Amino acid sequence: MVPAPPIDAARVVADLRELARRTGDDAGAQRLAWTETWRDARLFLSELLAAIDVAHEVDEAGNLWARLEGADESAPALALGSHLDSVPDGGWLDGALGVMGALGAMRSHALAGQPPPIPLVLVDWADEEGARFGRSLFGSSAFAGTLDPAEVAELHDADGRALPDVLVENGIDLERAGECSRRRGGLGAYLELHIEQGPVLEREGMTVAAVSGCQGIERVRFTFTGQAAHAGTTPMELRSDAGLAAAACALEIERLPGRHGGVATTGELRLKPGIATAVAGEATLGCDLRNPDRDALASMLGGAREAARSCARERGCDVAEEPVWRIEPVGFDDALVTKAREACRQATGAEFELTSGALPDAAAVARVMPAAMLFCPSQGGISHTVREDTNESDLVVALETFGDLVAMVLDA
Amino acid sequence: MVPAPPIDAARVVADLRELARRTGDDAGAQRLAWTETWRDARLFLSELLAAIDVAHEVDEAGNLWARLEGADESAPALALGSHLDSVPDGGWLDGALGVMGALGAMRSHALAGQPPPIPLVLVDWADEEGARFGRSLFGSSAFAGTLDPAEVAELHDADGRALPDVLVENGIDLERAGECSRRRGGLGAYLELHIEQGPVLEREGMTVAAVSGCQGIERVRFTFTGQAAHAGTTPMELRSDAGLAAAACALEIERLPGRHGGVATTGELRLKPGIATAVAGEATLGCDLRNPDRDALASMLGGAREAARSCARERGCDVAEEPVWRIEPVGFDDALVTKAREACRQATGAEFELTSGALPDAAAVARVMPAAMLFCPSQGGISHTVREDTNESDLVVALETFGDLVAMVLDA
Repeated sequence: MVPAPPIDAARVVADLRELARRTGDDAGAQRLAWTETWRDARLFLSELLAAIDVAHEVDEAGNLWARLEGADESAPALALGSHLDSVPDGGWLDGALGVMGALGAMRSHALAGQPPPIPLVLVDWADEEGARFGRSLFGSSAFAGTLDPAEVAELHDADGRALPDVLVENGIDLERAGECSRRRGGLGAYLELHIEQGPVLEREGMTVAAVSGCQGIERVRFTFTGQAAHAGTTPMELRSDAGLAAAACALEIERLPGRHGGVATTGELRLKPGIATAVAGEATLGCDLRNPDRDALASMLGGAREAARSCARERGCDVAEEPVWRIEPVGFDDALVTKAREACRQATGAEFELTSGALPDAAAVARVMPAAMLFCPSQGGISHTVREDTNESDLVVALETFGDLVAMVLDA
Repeated sequence: MVPAPPIDAARVVADLRELARRTGDDAGAQRLAWTETWRDARLFLSELLAAIDVAHEVDEAGNLWARLEGADESAPALALGSHLDSVPDGGWLDGALGVMGALGAMRSHALAGQPPPIPLVLVDWADEEGARFGRSLFGSSAFAGTLDPAEVAELHDADGRALPDVLVENGIDLERAGECSRRRGGLGAYLELHIEQGPVLEREGMTVAAVSGCQGIERVRFTFTGQAAHAGTTPMELRSDAGLAAAACALEIERLPGRHGGVATTGELRLKPGIATAVAGEATLGCDLRNPDRDALASMLGGAREAARSCARERGCDVAEEPVWRIEPVGFDDALVTKAREACRQATGAEFELTSGALPDAAAVARVMPAAMLFCPSQGGISHTVREDTNESDLVVALETFGDLVAMVLDA
C-alpha cells in the first residue's frame, strides 16, 4: 500500500489567514450565514477547490459539496467537513478550521498523483451557527432529516427579514431543503476537525484529542410572575419579588452539575419593569443544561424545575416554563473514535477523549451515519469573539493528525 | 374666632374625576410634565382658580402659584400643594389629589366670605415625577435651591430632545430656574396631601395618617465583570459567572433591611451577553436602599458594598460601583407633624405615623421651611398605573382631615 500523502498544514494555516483577511475585520470574522461576506468565503473555497481541479455544487439546503474520485468509485465516500459561517465578530477558526482542514486533506490526495482508495467528499454545512435566525445546524439538520421547515418558516432576523425570503436570495427553497438528505446514500462516514471552544484541552496540555460524542441539551425558559411595586413604599414583607425568585433559582441551578455532572448555565435573566426604583413583577430566566448522559440530563431538568417551583413559592410568585430547545446526547461511532484516539496517540504520544459541549454539525450527522471528531485547543477556552485563537504549533499538529486519521479511515 | 369653613370633599373628588377625563385615557393619566396634556391639566386648574376669583402665575422653574389674601397680609403665608404631572399611563390621584385638595381648601376659604387669618398659597410644582428626563422634583428642588442647572442641562427624553429646549417651549430658561427660590421669603409653612403609593395604611386599616418625614435614598449600580464563556464547553469549575455573582449579591442585599430597617430593592439586573448559551461576562445590578435613619442608611450601603465585594470574590469576578442618586433622610417639622396627628385623631379617632418611601415635593421643600404631609391609602399599595385607586370614602375623610389641618395651622 502506498503511504497516504501527508496534509500540508502550513498551507492550510495560510488559507485560513487569507480567509480571515477576506471575510473578517478588526472586530473578527463576519461570515454570518446567508450574507454576502459568507458567500465571499465560499467563493474563496471554490477558488481553492478549482486550483486542485475539484468541482463543487450546492445542495437544496445550501450545503456546499466537493468530491474527489476514489480508486473504488462504487464504495461509500468518506466525508470531511465543518462550516464556513461564523457568528458576527466571531473567531477565525470556528468552523473554518474544519473546512480548510478537509480541503487540506483533499488537496494532499489530489496532488498525490493517484486517487484515494474510496471517494473523498468535502462538505461546508450551511448556517451551523444559527446566529442570524436562532436555528443552529440548519444545513446538517436538513441532511440528517431533523429540520422541520414549518418550525423555522416564521423565524426572522434582527432586521425583521423572514428566513424563507433570505433563503430565496441564496437560491434555497425552504420547502425543498430536506431533499439534500438523498446525499446520505453515497456516504459511509463523516469526520470533522474543530476547535474545542472550551478550556479543557488547554488545561490538560493536549494539542489534539478525540471527541466521543456530544452532550445532550435541555434549554428552557422560566418566567416568574410576582407583583411589580414601588421600591420605596413597599415593605419587604409585602413583596412578591420575581427578580429575587429568579436569582435564587439561578443559584440552585448552578448546583445541579455537582449532583448530576454536565454543565448548567443561566446566562439570560431579564427583569420587568427592570428599573432600580421598582420591585420586579416579572423575571425571565433562560436555563441551558447539558450532559452526555441521557438520564443524568433528565435529572438535571427535573432539578431545575423543582428549583423554579420552590423559589417561586418562597416569594409568593408563580412560575411558568417554556421549552426552547432540546437535543438528545449523541455518541460518535465507536470504531471511528478508537481510530481518532489512535491517530492522536501516534501524533502526540498521548491521547485524551472528551465530549463536545458545543453543538457541531457532526452532532446532526452522527444520527444518520458513523461520525467522529477531533478537537484542538482554544486559547483560554475562548470562542465566538475576535480573541478566539489557537497556537499555530497546535494547529499544525491537529491538522496533521486529522490528515493521518483521514488516511487511516480511507485505508480501512 | 369664626370656625374655619370645612372643605367640600365631594366637590374636590368631582374636580379630580373631571381632570382624569380631560387629561387621561383608558391607559391612565397622561400628564407627562412639559407636554400639552400637562398644560391642559393646568388650564383646568386655572379655570377652577378663576371661578373663585384667585389669580395665578408661573415662576422661573415652571411652578404654578395662586394666592388668597389673608387678614394679615404681612404674615408669612401657608403654602399647600403637590404636582399635576404624572408618569405615562399613571394614576388619577398621584399628585393631583394634593393639588385639588389644596384648591379645595383655598376654595372653602374664598367662599366663606372672609379672608383666612394669614395668606393661603397654592403651588403646583413642575415635573415632580421626572418621568420624561429622569430628574425628579424639578420645580420643588429649584425652589429649595438644590437644582443644579449644569447637572440637568444634558438630559434628553426618549425622543432625543434636550431638557433645556423643552423648557424653552414652556417659557422656562433653565439657567434662571433657581430664581424661583425668592418666593421662600413670603412663606411660613408647607402642607401636602398625597396618596401613600404603598400598602402600609391599607394593611393598618387607616384612612389618613401623618407623615413624619421621608426616607433617605442611596442608589448605586454595581457592575460585576467575570468572563463570558460558552455554556456548553466551559466546565463549572473554570467559570467566572458575573450573572451568578450579581444574583448572589441581590439575595444578600435583600437581607439588609432585616438588620438595619428600611427597604432594599434590586429591580435592575442586566447580563451581557445576556443569552442562554453563554456564561455572563458582565452583570449590572441596580441597588436602591431607603431608610429614614441616616446612620442606618449608611450601614445598609456599607452592607451592600461588602456583599458586592464578597459575591464577586467568590466567583472570581471584579466589581465596580457607580453612584446613581442619593438623598439624605428628611424629617418633617415636629410641630406640624404633631398637628397632623391631632387632625387625624380628631377626624378618625385613630392616629398613625409613617415615613414616606417615595420622594414627594415636600421632601425638597422641608429642607428650607417647616413642612408636613398627610397620606391616604392606595388600594393594594399600587401606584404609577391606571389601576391606582383609593376608596372614595377614604378620599373624602382624607380631604376633610387635610382641610382641618389647614385650619389648625392657619389659626395657630
